[in-house]
Amino acid sequence: MDVKLVNPFINATLSVLETMAFIEVRAGKPYVKIDNVAVGDITGILGLTGVANGTIAVTFEERCILTIVSNMFGETMEKLDDDISDAVGELTNMISGQARRELELMGKVFKAAIPSVVTGRSHSIRHYSEGPKLAIPFNTDGGDFTIEVCFER
Amino acid sequence: MDVKLVNPFINATLSVLETMAFIEVRAGKPYVKIDNVAVGDITGILGLTGVANGTIAVTFEERCILTIVSNMFGETMEKLDDDISDAVGELTNMISGQARRELELMGKVFKAAIPSVVTGRSHSIRHYSEGPKLAIPFNTDGGDFTIEVCFER
Repeated sequence: MDVKLVNPFINATLSVLETMAFIEVRAGKPYVKIDNVAVGDITGILGLTGVANGTIAVTFEERCILTIVSNMFGETMEKLDDDISDAVGELTNMISGQARRELELMGKVFKAAIPSVVTGRSHSIRHYSEGPKLAIPFNTDGGDFTIEVCFER
Repeated sequence: MDVKLVNPFINATLSVLETMAFIEVRAGKPYVKIDNVAVGDITGILGLTGVANGTIAVTFEERCILTIVSNMFGETMEKLDDDISDAVGELTNMISGQARRELELMGKVFKAAIPSVVTGRSHSIRHYSEGPKLAIPFNTDGGDFTIEVCFER
């Protein structure tokens, strides 16, 4: 995968989380995902089509997303309910939208499907593609999350 | 949602499962999904873009997918491993592909992203869209599965 495809997702994630949740986010080193390492409690998944077909998955630990959404809403969120799912859907949309704008400036145009949000203790994600799967770990004071980006080629 | 968009997914599901897994599949009555009713153990999720943006999710109970993949592979599968995940990704691709061919004959052209497969005991899916979400329950002698189709409008 062209690494240039990944940086816009990192930039968008940092910007969206800091703008929406006023939380400091630190990006770790991207790595090639060789198995189902990103295990989390809630995940936003969004399909992309265009110059390449792909998918982006944003997987949060429960503690991390509760901190983020508490900051977004200005009230303490205590469990993974539909409000949290919708917030994950919206964050996934915003990260994708901002990344796609940066990609478009590079001449790479993608369309986005609609996000699906999976909730369930310690689920894992596997992308069904021959292409490489890149995972980017993020760290906040509220906990960790991971973004996975996978394209066909 | 135009109900005409849903029938091709039902037809494709019946055809793909019967062809690939030699299993009799009975489609139940589609219903509008008002909450996170489709709870399962493994789900293939595939984004669609085109005349409308949407998503399709195929959610299996463990017992059901083990029966299906055992039939596909001609050997007894006993747990949800990577081979099962890949089979769910492939089935999701095939159902989407066959449905999209039928939709194209109706003048509705969709592109598909790549499938992501979620594994985790009793997870639930929520689609982040204002549009209606239709769920179609399917029944086999090996157990149940559900297909959800959601479009923006």
